[in-house]
Amino acid sequence: MTRPIRLGMVGGGNDAFIGAVHRIAARMDGHFTLVAGALSSSAEKARASGAALGLAPDRTYDSFAAMARREARLKDGIEAVAIVTPNHMHFAPAREFLKRGIHVICDKPLTATMAEARKMVQAVRASKALFILTHNYTGYPMIRQAREMVASGALGRIRLVNVEYVQDWLTEPLEQSGQKQAAWRTDPARSGAGGATGDIGTHAYNLARFVTGLGLDSLSADLDAFGAGRVLDDNGHVMLRFEGGAKGLLWCSQVAPGNENGLRLRIYGDKGGLEWAQEDPNYLFHAPLGEPKRRLTRGGAGASAAAAAVTRTPGGHPEGYLEGFANIYTGAARAIRAHQAGQPMPDLDDLPGIDDGLEGMKFVDACVRSSRRNAAWVRLG
Amino acid sequence: MTRPIRLGMVGGGNDAFIGAVHRIAARMDGHFTLVAGALSSSAEKARASGAALGLAPDRTYDSFAAMARREARLKDGIEAVAIVTPNHMHFAPAREFLKRGIHVICDKPLTATMAEARKMVQAVRASKALFILTHNYTGYPMIRQAREMVASGALGRIRLVNVEYVQDWLTEPLEQSGQKQAAWRTDPARSGAGGATGDIGTHAYNLARFVTGLGLDSLSADLDAFGAGRVLDDNGHVMLRFEGGAKGLLWCSQVAPGNENGLRLRIYGDKGGLEWAQEDPNYLFHAPLGEPKRRLTRGGAGASAAAAAVTRTPGGHPEGYLEGFANIYTGAARAIRAHQAGQPMPDLDDLPGIDDGLEGMKFVDACVRSSRRNAAWVRLG
Amino acid sequence: MTRPIRLGMVGGGNDAFIGAVHRIAARMDGHFTLVAGALSSSAEKARASGAALGLAPDRTYDSFAAMARREARLKDGIEAVAIVTPNHMHFAPAREFLKRGIHVICDKPLTATMAEARKMVQAVRASKALFILTHNYTGYPMIRQAREMVASGALGRIRLVNVEYVQDWLTEPLEQSGQKQAAWRTDPARSGAGGATGDIGTHAYNLARFVTGLGLDSLSADLDAFGAGRVLDDNGHVMLRFEGGAKGLLWCSQVAPGNENGLRLRIYGDKGGLEWAQEDPNYLFHAPLGEPKRRLTRGGAGASAAAAAVTRTPGGHPEGYLEGFANIYTGAARAIRAHQAGQPMPDLDDLPGIDDGLEGMKFVDACVRSSRRNAAWVRLG
Amino acid sequence: MTRPIRLGMVGGGNDAFIGAVHRIAARMDGHFTLVAGALSSSAEKARASGAALGLAPDRTYDSFAAMARREARLKDGIEAVAIVTPNHMHFAPAREFLKRGIHVICDKPLTATMAEARKMVQAVRASKALFILTHNYTGYPMIRQAREMVASGALGRIRLVNVEYVQDWLTEPLEQSGQKQAAWRTDPARSGAGGATGDIGTHAYNLARFVTGLGLDSLSADLDAFGAGRVLDDNGHVMLRFEGGAKGLLWCSQVAPGNENGLRLRIYGDKGGLEWAQEDPNYLFHAPLGEPKRRLTRGGAGASAAAAAVTRTPGGHPEGYLEGFANIYTGAARAIRAHQAGQPMPDLDDLPGIDDGLEGMKFVDACVRSSRRNAAWVRLG
Repeated sequence: MTRPIRLGMVGGGNDAFIGAVHRIAARMDGHFTLVAGALSSSAEKARASGAALGLAPDRTYDSFAAMARREARLKDGIEAVAIVTPNHMHFAPAREFLKRGIHVICDKPLTATMAEARKMVQAVRASKALFILTHNYTGYPMIRQAREMVASGALGRIRLVNVEYVQDWLTEPLEQSGQKQAAWRTDPARSGAGGATGDIGTHAYNLARFVTGLGLDSLSADLDAFGAGRVLDDNGHVMLRFEGGAKGLLWCSQVAPGNENGLRLRIYGDKGGLEWAQEDPNYLFHAPLGEPKRRLTRGGAGASAAAAAVTRTPGGHPEGYLEGFANIYTGAARAIRAHQAGQPMPDLDDLPGIDDGLEGMKFVDACVRSSRRNAAWVRLG
Repeated sequence: MTRPIRLGMVGGGNDAFIGAVHRIAARMDGHFTLVAGALSSSAEKARASGAALGLAPDRTYDSFAAMARREARLKDGIEAVAIVTPNHMHFAPAREFLKRGIHVICDKPLTATMAEARKMVQAVRASKALFILTHNYTGYPMIRQAREMVASGALGRIRLVNVEYVQDWLTEPLEQSGQKQAAWRTDPARSGAGGATGDIGTHAYNLARFVTGLGLDSLSADLDAFGAGRVLDDNGHVMLRFEGGAKGLLWCSQVAPGNENGLRLRIYGDKGGLEWAQEDPNYLFHAPLGEPKRRLTRGGAGASAAAAAVTRTPGGHPEGYLEGFANIYTGAARAIRAHQAGQPMPDLDDLPGIDDGLEGMKFVDACVRSSRRNAAWVRLG
Repeated sequence: MTRPIRLGMVGGGNDAFIGAVHRIAARMDGHFTLVAGALSSSAEKARASGAALGLAPDRTYDSFAAMARREARLKDGIEAVAIVTPNHMHFAPAREFLKRGIHVICDKPLTATMAEARKMVQAVRASKALFILTHNYTGYPMIRQAREMVASGALGRIRLVNVEYVQDWLTEPLEQSGQKQAAWRTDPARSGAGGATGDIGTHAYNLARFVTGLGLDSLSADLDAFGAGRVLDDNGHVMLRFEGGAKGLLWCSQVAPGNENGLRLRIYGDKGGLEWAQEDPNYLFHAPLGEPKRRLTRGGAGASAAAAAVTRTPGGHPEGYLEGFANIYTGAARAIRAHQAGQPMPDLDDLPGIDDGLEGMKFVDACVRSSRRNAAWVRLG
Repeated sequence: MTRPIRLGMVGGGNDAFIGAVHRIAARMDGHFTLVAGALSSSAEKARASGAALGLAPDRTYDSFAAMARREARLKDGIEAVAIVTPNHMHFAPAREFLKRGIHVICDKPLTATMAEARKMVQAVRASKALFILTHNYTGYPMIRQAREMVASGALGRIRLVNVEYVQDWLTEPLEQSGQKQAAWRTDPARSGAGGATGDIGTHAYNLARFVTGLGLDSLSADLDAFGAGRVLDDNGHVMLRFEGGAKGLLWCSQVAPGNENGLRLRIYGDKGGLEWAQEDPNYLFHAPLGEPKRRLTRGGAGASAAAAAVTRTPGGHPEGYLEGFANIYTGAARAIRAHQAGQPMPDLDDLPGIDDGLEGMKFVDACVRSSRRNAAWVRLG
């Protein structure tokens, strides 16, 4: 193992949920070491958070702009940055690091608005640095295997895709209590046009595309905001039409009591079906047409090369969310190292990037447009 | 127990699936005795089937018309008839028995066409006899309990209904092989305008309404016929808007490999959620908002009065499809006996009848109309 | 179908649990018609129960002895009798009917004592009539399939058998409240030497033997009576050594909160494993060595001829406890009819009888003997 | 966060399974940094493995003895060492580090022999350094919660403990193929007197004790070696008698096809029951007597303080084996830091140590002694 890649972080101060997840994921396989941070827009909180994480004081910054400027000049400055701020604060920092050649690992969705999304695309294209979007669920081994099985024709021609991401944490108007996660996710200024669609619907849509490889023709969406006083959708029903004739249903909700992170994917072709659930991610159920359903296990009987490539522990010793997330970071490390070595880029097919980010933004935009037009069929913009 | 009610049967000859189910359901609790039948439109097969069932030769008829005429005149003629023919053969026999005051227990959907459905409504209204439609899934004890819980406010105000009925048996064009069940179900002349929507979508829709009590405002349906050469839909994606603001998703499919009779219902209100699956019908999962999910068991801890009223065995000794079906027959027997005794009709609220039948036909009709108009929102006719 | 077999019943009056189960099982497939009963040792209750079941008053008897005498003389007297009394009341009635050539269908365990059990064997041997013991769990289709698979060598050489029957209904001293089921099952005078071992341990042991065909070499049992004031065991831990070297664990308990009727069987050979649970009986899990686990479904993909032979509904339309019980009755009917026709007896291999009854009694006796000797290894007597 | 603790490793070279697990666990929360290693008894392999892990060449040692001597003299020498060698190589290195005041984190079981185990106890007592044994399953959040619930009396008085650890990887004589893991685990010289009992039975026994707090009175064990040519047990059936009257069953097996790492724990008291399975570790099922079973989720509804204290991600984002393992390392870090600061030791009650190690060795020894005496009841030595 070569030395770890030097990583900075924007956002992710004390009490932020996803920042801690990124840090563990970056650390899991030893490929990254966190050395700098602009961890909060509050200078005081940024310093306290940096100290808590053991960052050197001179590499704990008050602003992402200061961090970008100084780190770019340091001999041992950061080589990559993780951006884990709310959606509306993705583009501005990403641009600063990208233009200095610092690789960006950015949380999803890509941005808060379509306009920013398009600017992000430009910024990525103009940069020599890499851009990775943490659609982390694609990092699960059995999802990698599902993708491989679909591509190999194990299901025959795909006819149906059923994907849902169902939660319950916004059943009540939690944002009115001051809960930070709820506050920004229900605020159009920080989240963008989509509520549940942007937060989790994009994950569901990305996962369906990642596994099936199908392109979307059009969608029809019926969005609702059930929570009292809520502006952004907290539930979305979406019918999908894929190119080539496959059909799909996508359901995202944050108001379904009893569901924590119920991301479930079911895919059916004319030769078989696959079923997977994020809450029990070590299992992939495969039903070859006319035969009994089989339970394929990560690390165990039936696991494929694609799964094995991102597997750490044997079957029956479950891996979880953090390991899946770490697989994205480890893929990013592999890409960054090839880039640094001037080697031909490895196959990044499995690594979500700017195209996925733009597609996700278009998905949210299309859902909102469709729903405003009484669920008319719309194409992605 | 008073003597069993004398029952006749139209359809259900050798090799018919649902006829045998009706006979077991009728016999399960001892409330009916099968004494006459017009079991097939083929005279020879009708006789052979009658003999196999132990019917007296003089009560084995070549036609439902002959059976209706003669049985109505017999002193110990049939008091009720089960109609278990394909959809297009529901109305004609039902009319004959209804007009002679013989109670009708009819398989679903009500008829093959809307025109016949409306005539059926007239025939029922014009008759003194009872009309019961075997939406058998409403007979499951935990479905009765779910209905009771929703009505009691255990879930608060209902926001979301997710119902699906997913099968795989028509993944390949089985009807081209001459398989009888597949042949008539994919034939518009015998099934009507709906394929999967009529055969199983009506069950799903009925179940959602039975449990929630919600009235439908409108729906948007995207129907497909994936099977080669197939005319009727074998997959339906339907978005639902209920009166009062609740939303729903309904998915019915006969082309999803690995699914046998995957009828699943999930209901979410602002105080909790309920989940139930027909293939594991003895469990009802209840998630009060903010509390752990509980597994309520038929006959066991958490079972309510509504469930207990239709329960035969203790918790952990599973009841199944036939017991649920028998609960419809036993409810029918109770109603028929009250009717015969001139007593006030018992509360038939739990017993599906002509209104449910018409609603189901309207549902299929609306799905087909919507789908033809590119999934436009339509109201039930 | 020929006419139903005329059946009488001993025990099973109002409020008895298992009597009602036997009646439904006898009726399910139309092979039996209940025409006589000695339903209670209380004359008044016997009459009331007979009336409730619609029996003719002159065939509602005060005692089994009276029933046996009179029915044997009637031209259309009963051809078979179901004995559904507590254990200590199995032998006396069975003897009366057997000696008059009336077939006996008897609940398990065979008797209350070993002495009676041996007398029962004599009575059966001395009679021309058939004797069937309702080890009903052997009637489940997927159990029939499991047996078939083991016999066919699908698991290779059997090494391990793990069987358990776990309940919770006697966690508290329910018998002290006057609850009838608890009262006799915890009373040595009516149950015999075994509590949980006799009531449910015999089922578990029978099921393991039925599926594996293994003969027992010896066992070591540690029995406990946890319930306050309880004499008979309510929990049993039993280690098993089979002939040929296979080993087993058997656990029966009535004091494990959260378990209703948790009868579970796991069998492992050198080529594969099988797992089955009575509470979800339509599934049989098969793990061929080194391959993914498969879920075989009753009536569906992977169901074998042995399962299909006792299956009524298609896959995904669950059958349950009553259908499994009915399979015993239907097997009994087939045997009785062959007997009446003077035909060679059909293969009764699947039908539990006197040998199983005696084996079960020996199992209980051995458990009690072993436990009294500090779990010494003992052979069946 | 203060700086990471400097960690060395003995064993864990390329291709060793458990070494990689320890490294990830040590790294997960950022509390340790691996700086030195004696990774293999082969000098060449030790160097190659050190290089692959990015260790400095001068801190890649040929032997644990050299590492202990030199690191103890370095100013920035290791503060703790992880010993991840086969069982027979635990004691010798542990002694070297302990006597130099370097904290030891040792894999289980404690040693290969009872004699070594007792020497290990002496070495630990004679040292000022800490000794932690990685009974990693005690690190699972829902196991912490189960322990807390039992201690709080949520189950009432414990009556029954059922624990099993079932695998299938030694169904065939894998050790004869040269597979390294199988080779040493089936070799008495390297594993000790127990095969499955030592490898996984000790985990099961430790887990049962950890959660219930019960002391063992005696056990009766029936061990088998089913694998061809195998000397050590690959299957163990064990009956347990706890002090105070509770009873238990323990089953460990490595020859049960279809089981990967089936560690399952069920505990029943007179007020309720708990069930947990390592392969689905985010759920804890709690059945209060007479109430529906509840599914408590890690990070979600019903999770307790004890669970929350070792939880990283919200409910529905599963944690797994590595996170549970990391909880042991993080507990170790906390203890080491308190020790270094001369602070009163934190409550190490949750952290497995030398006492657990000795108890585990006694358990294996007792199983072997009992089995040799035909499963006689024996006390721990």
